Amino acid sequence: MTDVLPTSADVSAAAARLRQWVVRTPVLESPLLNERLGTRVLLKAECLQYTGSFKIRGAMNRLLQLSADERAAGVVAFSSGNHAQGVAQAARWLGCQAVIVMPRDAPAVKLQGTRDLGAEVVLYDRYAEDREAIARQIAARRGAALVPAFDHADVIAGQGTVGLELVEWAREHDLSLGQVLVPCGGGGLCAGISLAVRSRFPDARILGVEPVGFDDTRQSLKAERRLSVRNGAGTLCDSLMTLMPGAITFAVNRRLMSQVLLVDDDQVARAMQFAFRHLQLVLEPGGAAALAALLAGKLEPLADCVAVVLSGGNVEPALFSRLIKGGLAAV
Amino acid sequence: MTDVLPTSADVSAAAARLRQWVVRTPVLESPLLNERLGTRVLLKAECLQYTGSFKIRGAMNRLLQLSADERAAGVVAFSSGNHAQGVAQAARWLGCQAVIVMPRDAPAVKLQGTRDLGAEVVLYDRYAEDREAIARQIAARRGAALVPAFDHADVIAGQGTVGLELVEWAREHDLSLGQVLVPCGGGGLCAGISLAVRSRFPDARILGVEPVGFDDTRQSLKAERRLSVRNGAGTLCDSLMTLMPGAITFAVNRRLMSQVLLVDDDQVARAMQFAFRHLQLVLEPGGAAALAALLAGKLEPLADCVAVVLSGGNVEPALFSRLIKGGLAAV
Repeated sequence: MTDVLPTSADVSAAAARLRQWVVRTPVLESPLLNERLGTRVLLKAECLQYTGSFKIRGAMNRLLQLSADERAAGVVAFSSGNHAQGVAQAARWLGCQAVIVMPRDAPAVKLQGTRDLGAEVVLYDRYAEDREAIARQIAARRGAALVPAFDHADVIAGQGTVGLELVEWAREHDLSLGQVLVPCGGGGLCAGISLAVRSRFPDARILGVEPVGFDDTRQSLKAERRLSVRNGAGTLCDSLMTLMPGAITFAVNRRLMSQVLLVDDDQVARAMQFAFRHLQLVLEPGGAAALAALLAGKLEPLADCVAVVLSGGNVEPALFSRLIKGGLAAV
Repeated sequence: MTDVLPTSADVSAAAARLRQWVVRTPVLESPLLNERLGTRVLLKAECLQYTGSFKIRGAMNRLLQLSADERAAGVVAFSSGNHAQGVAQAARWLGCQAVIVMPRDAPAVKLQGTRDLGAEVVLYDRYAEDREAIARQIAARRGAALVPAFDHADVIAGQGTVGLELVEWAREHDLSLGQVLVPCGGGGLCAGISLAVRSRFPDARILGVEPVGFDDTRQSLKAERRLSVRNGAGTLCDSLMTLMPGAITFAVNRRLMSQVLLVDDDQVARAMQFAFRHLQLVLEPGGAAALAALLAGKLEPLADCVAVVLSGGNVEPALFSRLIKGGLAAV
């Protein structure tokens, strides 16, 4: 892992590199949502990205920068699911082998999706084993490159292309970005988007959104140093269950992120219901976190517009069914 | 109702009229789907349109051409749900009153969605009453304009803008459209898309897709005259339960549509599962019909590309839940 901090120039370079590979995801609006919030809500539908989440961007940006020899030796990653699928797809495109270390209790759609993409999946126990150690061991044994889920300059720069696309969209529509809500796990998406957005709109507020119980970034920002939360609480947001921010992501977010908002499971479920009914989008709990914060009134939106990143949509049919049947009255 | 046949020039005029009102919906691709079909599958995600279906296009194109006096008298429509919401939204934007005649057994999300948009909903019995007569009576009493769900040149031209956007997308990507699969109810979307596509790609095959039991267009094309099917069979596709093609839509489709494919409920459910899991899109049964035909192997796709219209995504949570839980193995 490198300690080099990524820059907004790295995000631009990543965008050029990724152009032919990833989807320039649409920015959607809902007349109902705009009316309800009294502003334009720009929904960056990254759930429509290949593999169903933004993770393919960072993974592909890293893999494209490996040498031919490195690619030939394969890649290793650990992930609860979205990064797993991102790395698996990137490896498939580039014709290299991928081994992914995944928790035994990861959503079945994510496990299956990763295997379907041709990756070898190694399972571990989320509560007893150290996935990083397992991944490092495999990488060392095979001479394979490790592709971190968030704490790497190339990965952060790749995720930042989501922010760059938002900036470009805003400019095309004569809007300036004042508030950007972003789901926050390890902080890679937040860091990348912060770099891209604040270099163009210096006054923009980047608001990370964490699930209650996994507010490691919030606590770390408050303490001004990286803190770890205990893995005790549960959350619907399997993709945001990080216990400690990354060294690199935190160094960036500390400088550029304005604030962290918290959402609980009920708020997340309501956002998923809203997306199902009014946006015709399938969001996974973690992918709906930023929308949840907005719908729950966690911030006073600016009059001009507020941007919300819908970061992923890989969710078990059984869980999704349970949540959307919460009733129409709720949304 | 007018008997004037719409032209491709009418579609272009509609596009200019609608530009500031409707979403230019994205064309999505899935690496998995492309690999499986051995061609590029261009998914026109019209479920991401305002009100969750393409119907807003035709409704708005009609309403924008009413005089100020006509608008002041309000509008009347009959619809099982998507056209209802399209007319309600269009009327809301233009500040005119809308009365919508809807079947008592329409999906609750569609009834509620129509009411939420400020329209007055009049219920009727799908199996015993004549909705057209009820609507005409209300229109006559109020001096209000009737907005047909499909059989009107302005409505067809509006729906055709979906096809025009597909043409423009294909040209931007150096592709020519050879096959376009379109869900077929009354035939308005098929007719509009046919006009837009075949004026630019004369050899393109427009393939309508009807649910088993509601193949009125297929039978009519075969007989070379409009035939009615009996309202006996059931189908999941509430938005495609038309018993007879329109006079205008049939006149266009007879000339420009190549063929009609049929899909059953099981095939439709599988397409909805596929969209849920791999596209992160919520499709309603009727909106998934064209994708269902492709996935079920109802046509030999061309090597270059095949375009599929995903026409809507307004579906009951309970039904959606039941269908997506059909199991992962199935998709």
